[in-house]
Amino acid sequence: MTDNRIKVGVVGGTGYTGVELLRLLVNHPNVRLAAVTSRSEAGMPVADLFPSLRGHLALPFTDPENGELADCDLVYFATPNGVAMRSAPQLLAQGIRIIDLAADFRLKNQKEWEHWYQEDHACPELLATAVYGLPEVNREQIKSAQLIANPGCYPTAVQLGLLPLLESKCIDTKSIIADCKSGVSGAGRKASLGTSLCEVSESIKAYAVPGHRHLPEIAQGLKAVAGGDAELVFVPHLVPMIRGIHATLYAKLSAAKTGSENAAALQAMFAQRYQDEPFVDVLPQGSHPDTRSVKGANYCRIAVHRPLNGDTVVILSVIDNLVKGAAGQAVQNMNIMFGLNESAGLNNPALLP
Amino acid sequence: MTDNRIKVGVVGGTGYTGVELLRLLVNHPNVRLAAVTSRSEAGMPVADLFPSLRGHLALPFTDPENGELADCDLVYFATPNGVAMRSAPQLLAQGIRIIDLAADFRLKNQKEWEHWYQEDHACPELLATAVYGLPEVNREQIKSAQLIANPGCYPTAVQLGLLPLLESKCIDTKSIIADCKSGVSGAGRKASLGTSLCEVSESIKAYAVPGHRHLPEIAQGLKAVAGGDAELVFVPHLVPMIRGIHATLYAKLSAAKTGSENAAALQAMFAQRYQDEPFVDVLPQGSHPDTRSVKGANYCRIAVHRPLNGDTVVILSVIDNLVKGAAGQAVQNMNIMFGLNESAGLNNPALLP
Amino acid sequence: MTDNRIKVGVVGGTGYTGVELLRLLVNHPNVRLAAVTSRSEAGMPVADLFPSLRGHLALPFTDPENGELADCDLVYFATPNGVAMRSAPQLLAQGIRIIDLAADFRLKNQKEWEHWYQEDHACPELLATAVYGLPEVNREQIKSAQLIANPGCYPTAVQLGLLPLLESKCIDTKSIIADCKSGVSGAGRKASLGTSLCEVSESIKAYAVPGHRHLPEIAQGLKAVAGGDAELVFVPHLVPMIRGIHATLYAKLSAAKTGSENAAALQAMFAQRYQDEPFVDVLPQGSHPDTRSVKGANYCRIAVHRPLNGDTVVILSVIDNLVKGAAGQAVQNMNIMFGLNESAGLNNPALLP
Amino acid sequence: MTDNRIKVGVVGGTGYTGVELLRLLVNHPNVRLAAVTSRSEAGMPVADLFPSLRGHLALPFTDPENGELADCDLVYFATPNGVAMRSAPQLLAQGIRIIDLAADFRLKNQKEWEHWYQEDHACPELLATAVYGLPEVNREQIKSAQLIANPGCYPTAVQLGLLPLLESKCIDTKSIIADCKSGVSGAGRKASLGTSLCEVSESIKAYAVPGHRHLPEIAQGLKAVAGGDAELVFVPHLVPMIRGIHATLYAKLSAAKTGSENAAALQAMFAQRYQDEPFVDVLPQGSHPDTRSVKGANYCRIAVHRPLNGDTVVILSVIDNLVKGAAGQAVQNMNIMFGLNESAGLNNPALLP
Repeated sequence: MTDNRIKVGVVGGTGYTGVELLRLLVNHPNVRLAAVTSRSEAGMPVADLFPSLRGHLALPFTDPENGELADCDLVYFATPNGVAMRSAPQLLAQGIRIIDLAADFRLKNQKEWEHWYQEDHACPELLATAVYGLPEVNREQIKSAQLIANPGCYPTAVQLGLLPLLESKCIDTKSIIADCKSGVSGAGRKASLGTSLCEVSESIKAYAVPGHRHLPEIAQGLKAVAGGDAELVFVPHLVPMIRGIHATLYAKLSAAKTGSENAAALQAMFAQRYQDEPFVDVLPQGSHPDTRSVKGANYCRIAVHRPLNGDTVVILSVIDNLVKGAAGQAVQNMNIMFGLNESAGLNNPALLP
Repeated sequence: MTDNRIKVGVVGGTGYTGVELLRLLVNHPNVRLAAVTSRSEAGMPVADLFPSLRGHLALPFTDPENGELADCDLVYFATPNGVAMRSAPQLLAQGIRIIDLAADFRLKNQKEWEHWYQEDHACPELLATAVYGLPEVNREQIKSAQLIANPGCYPTAVQLGLLPLLESKCIDTKSIIADCKSGVSGAGRKASLGTSLCEVSESIKAYAVPGHRHLPEIAQGLKAVAGGDAELVFVPHLVPMIRGIHATLYAKLSAAKTGSENAAALQAMFAQRYQDEPFVDVLPQGSHPDTRSVKGANYCRIAVHRPLNGDTVVILSVIDNLVKGAAGQAVQNMNIMFGLNESAGLNNPALLP
Repeated sequence: MTDNRIKVGVVGGTGYTGVELLRLLVNHPNVRLAAVTSRSEAGMPVADLFPSLRGHLALPFTDPENGELADCDLVYFATPNGVAMRSAPQLLAQGIRIIDLAADFRLKNQKEWEHWYQEDHACPELLATAVYGLPEVNREQIKSAQLIANPGCYPTAVQLGLLPLLESKCIDTKSIIADCKSGVSGAGRKASLGTSLCEVSESIKAYAVPGHRHLPEIAQGLKAVAGGDAELVFVPHLVPMIRGIHATLYAKLSAAKTGSENAAALQAMFAQRYQDEPFVDVLPQGSHPDTRSVKGANYCRIAVHRPLNGDTVVILSVIDNLVKGAAGQAVQNMNIMFGLNESAGLNNPALLP
Repeated sequence: MTDNRIKVGVVGGTGYTGVELLRLLVNHPNVRLAAVTSRSEAGMPVADLFPSLRGHLALPFTDPENGELADCDLVYFATPNGVAMRSAPQLLAQGIRIIDLAADFRLKNQKEWEHWYQEDHACPELLATAVYGLPEVNREQIKSAQLIANPGCYPTAVQLGLLPLLESKCIDTKSIIADCKSGVSGAGRKASLGTSLCEVSESIKAYAVPGHRHLPEIAQGLKAVAGGDAELVFVPHLVPMIRGIHATLYAKLSAAKTGSENAAALQAMFAQRYQDEPFVDVLPQGSHPDTRSVKGANYCRIAVHRPLNGDTVVILSVIDNLVKGAAGQAVQNMNIMFGLNESAGLNNPALLP
């Protein structure tokens, strides 16, 4: 009997996006996990590092150079920025498809990438061919993509919240503000004073107000959809919780629209835009989504408000940064790339409470 | 084409064990969810109360009296104590099997039940026939049971941690101490000052030291296994987290055994006792399980210690109080009752981080 | 030897602002606490309800009608909205000064008050004479005030963050957005599902986006300072922590100013405006204050940003909602009213970590 | 006018016990803070590292070698283990008194110290003369001590909970179990994966069950009081909160006492033992102290239980690990050493909520 499952490798399985990807893949009906690599932990069973996987994953970490990846149909990079771009050309040349969960292929403009990530890009020629893996925008290109740049967590929440407004050209594209709040897992799994419980619990703060790497990624996406210029002020905040992103989005309704675009019309516009999307859930008018409603699940839940019938529209958009903001969206992209049910392996409800 | 799935009703779906049961059941391959009842919320879609279920459950809450339960193969009671005992006789008479997640049928002794639960029992004749649903002890009886008393959360963690010691008669059964720590969801979903974030976060406290309702349930279980008397001191604590129970168990090794039962032998005893159990995971010697390693999963993870080679054995036993301590164990019991794969619907790894 | 201390009564000492006020008052060198009233708890020692006060406060709760208040120099109302307005006229007639920590006297416009608080005002004639107790704006009037309306928590953080911009007329007063994040204690001390740890921890959400009672209070304050119209969009969020408010404030720089008002000039403007204020701390340029830096302390810490040198100024303003946002500001007002050192009883640093 | 205040130096002010000590000292009426040293941060204002101290402390960190310490009356070491023992002999020779908040002088037995701390002791001759700074046991020796070994956090909570039982010889000294729970700040302020919010929040675990450095310290203290042998099993747990220790202590009542020592008699024994202690608070019978009742305060609150009138006594003992478990107790020791009011600088109530 043939095993028709996709052979999958995961490079860099020791971080939070890595372990989340493994959580989703071990039960994916169409996936055979062939290799999980880590230079630093090679030889150790993955489940020794992550006891949550005991009984679900028997593989050890292996060295990325030991040849197993060459045998895969698809390789995920759940590595720090700057790693995937060093291996991608060779793997692609072997016909292996790639989904990079880091930022190496998210920006189209090489100079901009090098400015924000502070190093030379190792394969700038791939920036043009990489497909930005936001299914709600690029589903068709994802189907045939060889290389997917999986979107950042903030960019996913912000773009999904703004798309309908931009597509319908009903807001002033110079007036956009994205006030975003993230759980601590967004900072990754590493020894760091700045993410220790005693430093970040019982507190909230903004960070990177002068400029955050997700800003050019968001702006690039908004401009593409707006078909012209789009500007935003983006302020991320660190919230004392493990998972979750809440994007609170503000924009001025265009002068021409201020009268007519009442709250109900805005609501209908969102409902229609996302009616066929399996993972974008537009809540009933007047709702306030909480991030726990998507904890561990691949949804983006959105609510639309126009406070006091004024000229500012307020969008509330929540995701789990490790799922729709990282590993879940990566699996969704794989499902699309390989012609599977787009929800395969992703149909668990959120863990509540 | 016939639908061979089990027709399941859930009475009282508005609490935390209820929503957790629904989370597990909506994706269970052998279950058709036929009714979710709630007197207070009848008519409201379940997913309006629990947005985490949007897209997964289309049912509204219905009144328990409206007849749907009569059509079910199995009815779960995820109700407060004292509810199931009022409906059980009639449902059983109709041939419907029952799993009660509350305490109505957990104690065999009517007087003891009435003492601890402070009311008359409505159907004391069922106390003898109800099967205590701890699969690791009563798997055979569960297979044919009509009425399952699903164990309490503390009793599950404590009994699984002590069983091998009692069965092998290697401890002084008068020396047992169970120092237990629970997340706040164990207190249920209700308006209560005592569980508000401002009262319980950033703090830990013991409660019910003079006597907790789970004490007689644990003692009953320990005695049954010990084949004689067994006493314990049980002190529960409230920990600032949503889910999880950590039982730290202490017992003196029997005089005869003190010399011989070294740590490795104790470890081997536990490993052997649970080697065929799908949901009890004995960790390698020297381990310290954390409750997050079972968050959202049906496992009990156990570590065995004998500090400084002294005469006290220390067992660390962790579960998710809402899963192995409630809804997950209830699904495990259903699987056994209906001859399904015991892990059906329960094979998701824990959510970590 | 005469006791020259101020005789103080606290009406409604069972809530979070009440116990915080008591924490500050028991060690205030110029205060003698004469009565703490509570209808529901009359007779119980205050320290039985709040063990943190054991050894610091021997008073029992007494009934507000039993006459002790008549003997006081100052009465604080730490009661729900709608209580102080029923007792204020009589106490004022007896020459007793009042600080109301609730909202009864915060709005000048009776109709607006009745619209937002959904009841008739019991003494609308006092709305005009009550002094809004924001010392950084109204210090002179506070000195001689008989009745102080202590500001709300959000209004304190927002107004202090915007004052220098409005006074210097360097922003478009139609462009203000206040995205605010609050700890859960802002919701008060009461049995409520909505504030239980299992409902609000590990999550963040916006609430009251269509309209929050603090909106008219903020708008009134901004207009007074702007000397004209001022509008804002105000979106509060609930953060999983006990104490703290973080206001993230956005405004467009006026066209005339966009070129000249660089970040350094904005920084200097704030530094100068608050240089003599004991409780407003303007942080060095580029800072990101966290709410824990003011936990338990009466400070408002502020940082000024102009991201990417664009035309939007971003102000970060943090307070402890129970201190500078409630009880601490009330003590500061008392100090001013009675000619004491403005920092008396308020000079403890924040509790960090 | 002479400044009669004590000149105090703090060595190693960059950790959590350091900043807590500074919080207490900046408002201490009898202290002049002369130097805060840190090799790594020399030159930086202390308040730049800890914004909570802005406006309260103008000193910069200085190098410990620059001579300021020689001018002090008292030097605190808030350093890692192994630092104080290298500087103590020289400072003592200069007549400077020392309080070491680390473990260098806590054990009397050199071999034991070297076994548990895994290095040679630099000045073993001082182990005998150092006074163990638990005022409730050693107040007289503290008065004239030149070198104080400030007790560990767990040892403080455990010893205060057991002292009355040992002094009255009413328990079996071989039966003691100390199940202890600590907040994360006990692990210190450092970059560490193991204390990051994503690793420790929403979870609880035991650690160091095979043996923890505080075990010999506790045993030494218990033996001294028991006047003979005393053994204990000590299991520490990590709780998802910043501050607080909860010790749950179990011991068998001596055979001779089992009948007579009812709960009321045990309660009276504790009340009497601690009646003159300013910082030990015996709660009314039936109480369950929570750690938040001592957050930021120097109290140890204790409750006494004898569940079901059995032969096991259960003591609940809570402290703030950074206050009575570290910096607060150090200040209390200083007050005793210098003949000050023992509560000077320590009379703030806990921060609640």
